[in-house]
Amino acid sequence: MKLLKVDTVNEAREKLLAAARKKKKQIEFVNLNEALGRILASDLVSPEPIPSFRRSTVDGYAVKAVNTQGAGESIPVFLDVIERIEIGTPAIRMVQPGQCSYVPTGGMIPEGADAVVMVEYCEAFDEKSIAVYDAVSPGRNVVSIGEDIQEEALFLKKGTRLRPQEIGVLASAGVHTVPVYKPWKISIISTGDELVPADQKPMPGQIRDINTYVLEAMSIKYGFEVVSKQVLRDERSLLEEAVAEAMKSCDLVVASGGSSQGEKDHTADVLDQFAQPGVFTHGIALKPGKPTILGYDVISETILMGLPGHPAAAMIVFELMAVWLHRQLTHQPEPKYTTAAIQTNVASAPGRATCLLVELEDSEGGYIAKPIFGKSGLMTTLSRAHGYTMIDTNKEGLKEGEIVQVALL
Amino acid sequence: MKLLKVDTVNEAREKLLAAARKKKKQIEFVNLNEALGRILASDLVSPEPIPSFRRSTVDGYAVKAVNTQGAGESIPVFLDVIERIEIGTPAIRMVQPGQCSYVPTGGMIPEGADAVVMVEYCEAFDEKSIAVYDAVSPGRNVVSIGEDIQEEALFLKKGTRLRPQEIGVLASAGVHTVPVYKPWKISIISTGDELVPADQKPMPGQIRDINTYVLEAMSIKYGFEVVSKQVLRDERSLLEEAVAEAMKSCDLVVASGGSSQGEKDHTADVLDQFAQPGVFTHGIALKPGKPTILGYDVISETILMGLPGHPAAAMIVFELMAVWLHRQLTHQPEPKYTTAAIQTNVASAPGRATCLLVELEDSEGGYIAKPIFGKSGLMTTLSRAHGYTMIDTNKEGLKEGEIVQVALL
Repeated sequence: MKLLKVDTVNEAREKLLAAARKKKKQIEFVNLNEALGRILASDLVSPEPIPSFRRSTVDGYAVKAVNTQGAGESIPVFLDVIERIEIGTPAIRMVQPGQCSYVPTGGMIPEGADAVVMVEYCEAFDEKSIAVYDAVSPGRNVVSIGEDIQEEALFLKKGTRLRPQEIGVLASAGVHTVPVYKPWKISIISTGDELVPADQKPMPGQIRDINTYVLEAMSIKYGFEVVSKQVLRDERSLLEEAVAEAMKSCDLVVASGGSSQGEKDHTADVLDQFAQPGVFTHGIALKPGKPTILGYDVISETILMGLPGHPAAAMIVFELMAVWLHRQLTHQPEPKYTTAAIQTNVASAPGRATCLLVELEDSEGGYIAKPIFGKSGLMTTLSRAHGYTMIDTNKEGLKEGEIVQVALL
Repeated sequence: MKLLKVDTVNEAREKLLAAARKKKKQIEFVNLNEALGRILASDLVSPEPIPSFRRSTVDGYAVKAVNTQGAGESIPVFLDVIERIEIGTPAIRMVQPGQCSYVPTGGMIPEGADAVVMVEYCEAFDEKSIAVYDAVSPGRNVVSIGEDIQEEALFLKKGTRLRPQEIGVLASAGVHTVPVYKPWKISIISTGDELVPADQKPMPGQIRDINTYVLEAMSIKYGFEVVSKQVLRDERSLLEEAVAEAMKSCDLVVASGGSSQGEKDHTADVLDQFAQPGVFTHGIALKPGKPTILGYDVISETILMGLPGHPAAAMIVFELMAVWLHRQLTHQPEPKYTTAAIQTNVASAPGRATCLLVELEDSEGGYIAKPIFGKSGLMTTLSRAHGYTMIDTNKEGLKEGEIVQVALL
């Protein structure tokens, strides 16, 4: 086994991105009602303005604004009503000076009119005219053509994760099949002679497998497609077989456990054997997460990761490396963080980054971030955490009250 | 139509919660690998401690800590190795004074031992003994019994939304079928004579239906089960039929459009007709979102909501009312917000709350929240928004630089 120096988080990320940058991106088209949570694979430009006609935002009378000048609560102006526009149908008659047309909310503004007076400020005067008790300025209560989306405008960017509001934008622009990135296919391998499935009772010395469950859930959360997940005994040939099989179809193969220097730890060797031109990261200066192996096979375009066996560490490395890389390659912006004041001094070893799990507690001035200490083998530390904050490699720790950025988990 | 005073957001919420509080909660059991994102329906107590045996966090030698006292870089102590413990198998021999056993990461600590010296600080001395160059204190590198989850401890609370880390906790505790709340069944109705489906080209005066897409996506986002979604023409009998049919199977019926005072707006009347003992909220002092109708039918236990026709307003009211109520009834905590400094002064009308959409921009001292102004009919305003901040009913607006809580959308 090569014993190389560990990488900082940023060095590891740079290597990972440099290696995987040329990985082919696969695009598919999905129906709009299946597009929630997917990542847009191209910039979208609208062939038409939205709305494509001027619409009223209220129930009222479409007028020439200039005709309402001087009108007020006790001084009406009088206008002839020439049309009652129905919702969903075109306005037919042109409004001339001294005229108006009734228009419902969402209805089409007739030609000649440039504002709408709310119905609450109007009163029937006689059969063909109304009294208007409000002066409006041009554009009042009118959505103009292209006000939501201009013609030929880029209205959604490549890399956008489609939330309900983007689904709405796509609906309004008439995009009913959406170009999105195909989900990464992932194979999840967990190795360890001590592991039994979650529905089995462990014997003395055994524990239930956690990592395949956590990594499967993380994969689903981030939109990956889990091709296989399996728990293997610590035998090199089993791992070789599983990795070789996974590389045939997957974008990402993660093997947790067996990535440190113990006698039965074959992961680094096996990944190095399969990755052409070889594994490039043998350990990250990160707590927790040091025993991390990163490689990329240029032939099959597979990302290969050896994750720590400790579940909390495995999840953190998956988040910081795999999810991060996916975000880069699909042009997604960084997710939003929240800010909080750290509750206590926190020491951290210089020369390595610390991923500090925190609980967020409400207080007068915003959140207090309460550090969660605990061994990285403890799953409940992660469950108590609302998020994490990174203490950089060169930082010597945090001072009580310091404001930190918390990434929500 | 009854013309009642509008409710504040809090009054509307109180009425909604008071009415729906007794709604029966339905629970189902799902497999652990299908439980991601679901809401836990009972407190979970562990019948066993996790881990159930003492485990080593490192590769090393299990020792009596007292035997390593005085050891250091240049002054070893010598211990007899009595066993090589294999991962996944019980430790057999008891460690006596002067003895130790090799234990791998995750391996079982033998009886008699109370700490582990990392293998890096040990050296083979002869065939049966090692030199130890580090003094350890009791408990060092040992996960004790129940350190992750104590026996009989409540380890996950009712109302917990199951994230990947909770899936891990459940796996470690051996919970392979999980009690969760059944998803709310929802029927989504959108009314308007101007609406055409998203895959059709609107004629002059028509627009594409947006609300059923947005509300379906919101429903999926929050784990509701969409039973039906339909676009209706503005005819009272069509709405009556649709609501009656939906109430047979749904927990929540939302009808958007037709909830203001226009001539064709039947929603309030129809919901009032079906809700026993009647609709209780006829408008909310909220911008946007005023034309909101809330009711509850005690017989079918259906929540009935009339949402504004404007898509952005419909989505905001759905978030503030339907999603909020679901969170209350399923015992979920409030979601985490982020904080930001507001970029400009923002005026708001006293007497009504404002839901202000904001874009978050990075800056030295944390986020700047940039208000997004725009008519509530514009879908792109919501798509530009990272979240929203509420300006309370009694507040007169925001001052530039004021720190606000932003709920992420």
